[in-house]
Amino acid sequence: MGGSVRSISQARKLRDVLDPVLPRLEEVERFLNRELEHALPLVREVTSWVLGSGGKRLRPSLVLLTSRMFGYVGERDVRYGAVVELVHTATLVHDDIIDESDLRRGRPTANQRWGNQVAVLVGDWLYTRAMHLCLELGDVDVMRCLTAATLQMTEGELMAERVRGTADVTEAVYLDITRRKTAELFAAACALPALFQPSTLHFTEPLMEVGRNLGMCFQLVDDLLDFTSSRSELGKPVMADLREGRLTLPMILLLPRIDRARRASVLEVLSTGVFECISEQEVLETVRMSGVLEEVRARAAAYAARVAEIAERLPAGQEREAFVVASSLLLDRRS
Amino acid sequence: MGGSVRSISQARKLRDVLDPVLPRLEEVERFLNRELEHALPLVREVTSWVLGSGGKRLRPSLVLLTSRMFGYVGERDVRYGAVVELVHTATLVHDDIIDESDLRRGRPTANQRWGNQVAVLVGDWLYTRAMHLCLELGDVDVMRCLTAATLQMTEGELMAERVRGTADVTEAVYLDITRRKTAELFAAACALPALFQPSTLHFTEPLMEVGRNLGMCFQLVDDLLDFTSSRSELGKPVMADLREGRLTLPMILLLPRIDRARRASVLEVLSTGVFECISEQEVLETVRMSGVLEEVRARAAAYAARVAEIAERLPAGQEREAFVVASSLLLDRRS
Repeated sequence: MGGSVRSISQARKLRDVLDPVLPRLEEVERFLNRELEHALPLVREVTSWVLGSGGKRLRPSLVLLTSRMFGYVGERDVRYGAVVELVHTATLVHDDIIDESDLRRGRPTANQRWGNQVAVLVGDWLYTRAMHLCLELGDVDVMRCLTAATLQMTEGELMAERVRGTADVTEAVYLDITRRKTAELFAAACALPALFQPSTLHFTEPLMEVGRNLGMCFQLVDDLLDFTSSRSELGKPVMADLREGRLTLPMILLLPRIDRARRASVLEVLSTGVFECISEQEVLETVRMSGVLEEVRARAAAYAARVAEIAERLPAGQEREAFVVASSLLLDRRS
Repeated sequence: MGGSVRSISQARKLRDVLDPVLPRLEEVERFLNRELEHALPLVREVTSWVLGSGGKRLRPSLVLLTSRMFGYVGERDVRYGAVVELVHTATLVHDDIIDESDLRRGRPTANQRWGNQVAVLVGDWLYTRAMHLCLELGDVDVMRCLTAATLQMTEGELMAERVRGTADVTEAVYLDITRRKTAELFAAACALPALFQPSTLHFTEPLMEVGRNLGMCFQLVDDLLDFTSSRSELGKPVMADLREGRLTLPMILLLPRIDRARRASVLEVLSTGVFECISEQEVLETVRMSGVLEEVRARAAAYAARVAEIAERLPAGQEREAFVVASSLLLDRRS
């Protein structure tokens, strides 16, 4: 066990950190495939497409890590790993409609391939099916946790939609939206297994906090990658957020620091989605030279540090270590 | 009581049939309003708009009727009446996106007023909030029943989407789609209160059947109204189904009976949404002269008759009478 802990702390890839739960993660894949076998052909087709687009299965991995931390023996870890991935997939499908995206991870989105109509319905089916899978075991507390996270995700999206294309996003609003849109599902994924057994219930809160901080770290890095990666690494255009009318933290920090004319040009891109008065290259350089990317990275690092801090309240061992190492790997990821 | 029963059997309007549950229906309205008070402003705005569009609150009324039939005393009738209305509202909001409708009951749809983006999210919020309201009381069986109905609704929509714009809809496929899209939520609304108390559990099945038949009757009449009503009565264009690429039962029965040239012209309207080779008036007259409307009405009447037949298995009294009378009033409705 000491050896394993050492190997995790030396991990260079998320895959290494997750090594102990990989066999269970394969069970999650099998569970998802079995689910789809019984679905309508069109649901199967669309969902396989979205699930097969090379996602990292981060959220199911969190469910599995916590389950293992508590020595859970049973089938709930796999089932709820699959459930959080279905919820996540549902939000991806609906988000792509909302953003009118045609590419995700380098492939056409569901709405692009099958139309908005089918995409709306497949998203609905995935949400409902996920709830149904919770109900089969009658796990009311698990469902409460997941439903609360789903409500917050939808509310976060609505808040984002409300301010889209405008500069009406303070840092506080941005952080609140990000917590709801991303961090709450990470929190639920980490905390769900604490609900499997009465003896671990008191770990629910610290696990939610670990998950929230992981999620915030994850999303801030995602926002950075939109400025630092290439189109081929992202599988979608660079500065997609800006083009889609969304201000993320780097831009929110940048805007008050640049001159009025340049600010007006950037805001025009934000509201029109087109680089007209200012070139893509010029915006990128302004951002990169301004120092805001380093500031945002420092913020992301602070969230990762919080993960390590709160993890102290969890049972010591390989899995706790894995949460901490995962947060620093998420911080340094390139895609 | 004898007097009340007589007055229900003489009812001429749905409102009269529902008279005994009207006070509870007002509680449902209050429950919905309280729900919205706590929602995000944008959710409140959109949902109030959709809920305020003059719907008949048919599904909550069914929940209340069955609750009263069983002498239920408590708050679940009002809560689950509100829940089925929220689920129904969520499907309306998403359906209007799918159909690209801009009018419902004579008013702009949510997607028309706030855009597809907001409409997708508000629909998601309503579904999730409805589930959350079931979870507050931990009523797992109620949730199972509702989630199963919601899955079927989504599957029905997907099946309909798959064949949309084409003539690949047999009568059997149409009936299966209609059962899923409409009848299963009616079934759930009628049956839910049987789950409130162990002593009434054995009524679940006949109540589901009563609800399904009511729902089928309701939808077949809806399909007829699309040919027999005026634009002002419908609050949307006449033959909206055909324009949106949907074959309903009257058309499914008609197509094999008309000559090849005319069939080709109708199928072109179905696939293009435009009356080009044939006028709107000519299609309407062909349908009206063919006798298919009378046939479809006879089918709807058969579903209403089934309601009366199955109702025999329910406890006798005013509420049972109400189900039977409601089905014949739904059959004769004009809007």
